[in-house]
Amino acid sequence: MIKIGLDAMGGDFAPEAAVKGAVMALDRLNEHSRIVLFGHRERICEILDKEGCPADRFDIVHTTEVIEMGDHPAKAFQAKSDSSITVGFGYLAKGLIDGFASAGSTGAMMVGSMFAVKPVEGVLRPTISSFIPTLTSRPAVLMDVGLNVDCKPEVLAQYALIGSIFAKSVMGIDSPRVALLNIGEEAAKGNAQAQAAYQLMEADAAAGKYNFVGNVESSYIFTGKVADVIICDGFVGNTILKMAEGLYQINLRMGVTNDFWEQANYENFGGTPVLGVNAPVTIGHGKSTPKAIMNMIISTEHTIESNAVGLIKEAFVK
Amino acid sequence: MIKIGLDAMGGDFAPEAAVKGAVMALDRLNEHSRIVLFGHRERICEILDKEGCPADRFDIVHTTEVIEMGDHPAKAFQAKSDSSITVGFGYLAKGLIDGFASAGSTGAMMVGSMFAVKPVEGVLRPTISSFIPTLTSRPAVLMDVGLNVDCKPEVLAQYALIGSIFAKSVMGIDSPRVALLNIGEEAAKGNAQAQAAYQLMEADAAAGKYNFVGNVESSYIFTGKVADVIICDGFVGNTILKMAEGLYQINLRMGVTNDFWEQANYENFGGTPVLGVNAPVTIGHGKSTPKAIMNMIISTEHTIESNAVGLIKEAFVK
Repeated sequence: MIKIGLDAMGGDFAPEAAVKGAVMALDRLNEHSRIVLFGHRERICEILDKEGCPADRFDIVHTTEVIEMGDHPAKAFQAKSDSSITVGFGYLAKGLIDGFASAGSTGAMMVGSMFAVKPVEGVLRPTISSFIPTLTSRPAVLMDVGLNVDCKPEVLAQYALIGSIFAKSVMGIDSPRVALLNIGEEAAKGNAQAQAAYQLMEADAAAGKYNFVGNVESSYIFTGKVADVIICDGFVGNTILKMAEGLYQINLRMGVTNDFWEQANYENFGGTPVLGVNAPVTIGHGKSTPKAIMNMIISTEHTIESNAVGLIKEAFVK
Repeated sequence: MIKIGLDAMGGDFAPEAAVKGAVMALDRLNEHSRIVLFGHRERICEILDKEGCPADRFDIVHTTEVIEMGDHPAKAFQAKSDSSITVGFGYLAKGLIDGFASAGSTGAMMVGSMFAVKPVEGVLRPTISSFIPTLTSRPAVLMDVGLNVDCKPEVLAQYALIGSIFAKSVMGIDSPRVALLNIGEEAAKGNAQAQAAYQLMEADAAAGKYNFVGNVESSYIFTGKVADVIICDGFVGNTILKMAEGLYQINLRMGVTNDFWEQANYENFGGTPVLGVNAPVTIGHGKSTPKAIMNMIISTEHTIESNAVGLIKEAFVK
């Protein structure tokens, strides 16, 4: 039995969107999976009732508090000890659920990831990644997309390893091509950070840790022809991600829709996995719709089943 | 009389594309402007002849060498003393031409900018900028787009001033809105560089140097609603620029063309001004077509006429 924890109170349209998304996910999960909803039982049951869904299709853990977007994440995580996020992380840390997803406070989700489930031993800094559109049949993985905005080169090299394991286990890519985002193809290109990271990644590749294919320029990350996993500093990755989102919105407004751009719609992926911590955690977009929540639940199930966390732990024990 | 220098030998399709572009520009320049072609006289005249354009519509400065893409920029700039770029910069430094444009070796163009015409006194590091598409009737200016990939905060604050002067003088924008590219809107967001730059820009704005509107996220830079000038580190700016180019190409391939995306076509702007040096210098795309060359010449004329360089000098004397 896989237990997927969902913060029913998280996100701008919670609890409605969250609970509706959970209902939508029911038929798409494997038989042995079960969703555990963290939130106010009465409110959850009201929505389930409206949706015509029996409450017993879920486990419900009643919580009375909510960490709001305006709250200080670390303080609220402690002070609101009966909040859906804090209780959810408690369950996750104890192994009572196998993964936890929320479209609520990103800050609080990170506090939970770092202090409740904690970084994998040997991982300098956990990371958050995102799928980006490509012209091939599958997306590429971009990391870090905003957690660490002043990455040391050693941290970037670790992300390469983490990203490779993620792409292999969760996406099923054999020997994923890992590239360093840079402003030129040659090894000596880029800022001090990229130049140093290149050297470390080259050494890692020589040691057989992952398949480093060198630098990739941002003009080519969306073709899918160069890399499956693209490594960059969180400032740069967040800039890329938000730029893609902004251009997706502009395209929508201009009536440009197609398969490529639809991949830039976060709703289709639903969430950003936190990688390098001791349990699967997924952070959703604040604006998550029921569809986005549904996909976040499915991707969390997928991450749990792939044993990505276990494989990352193994890699860092070595 | 304004004399606009053009490297007739620069670019992947030179001298044909360069000379053809110069011919195309003829009718679009002001009466008092004249194009000075630097390159092999015989080859230039052959192309002019084919185009049915009398050679006397140009000044031609005969040069016998070309700095190739594979050459070491600094070494070649010295060693190939009769190259079109080296001679062109000699003319520019002596005031025999009023601006210089080339689609040739970017490295050599930067060497010329830094060592022949030199940075404006007080400017820590010159910058290269680029126009980016917006949903309004005019593009925004992004800088730096790749010259300085490890910017100190002080350098970014200077770019804000330079960019503001450029947008006002060359683009005719009254009190241009200058924003710092960041991964959040709040002052305390971002990496160490952005946080420090924010403080400096806020102080500059308080001193009346320019109209600082705060942080802008990459999701909003293309709307045109937040900022006219967007300031960032060269690594980030180059990443944004190349990403826009890559997505423009992908759109083209998918048959998506519209006014917005057409602004991402470098051909329509033709070149990147080098700002913060003592004379107008424009660097074109290596793949410049005649149309791109034409627009590069026109934009160089425009920069000369706007007296942007003079205004930048004034601002840094203070």
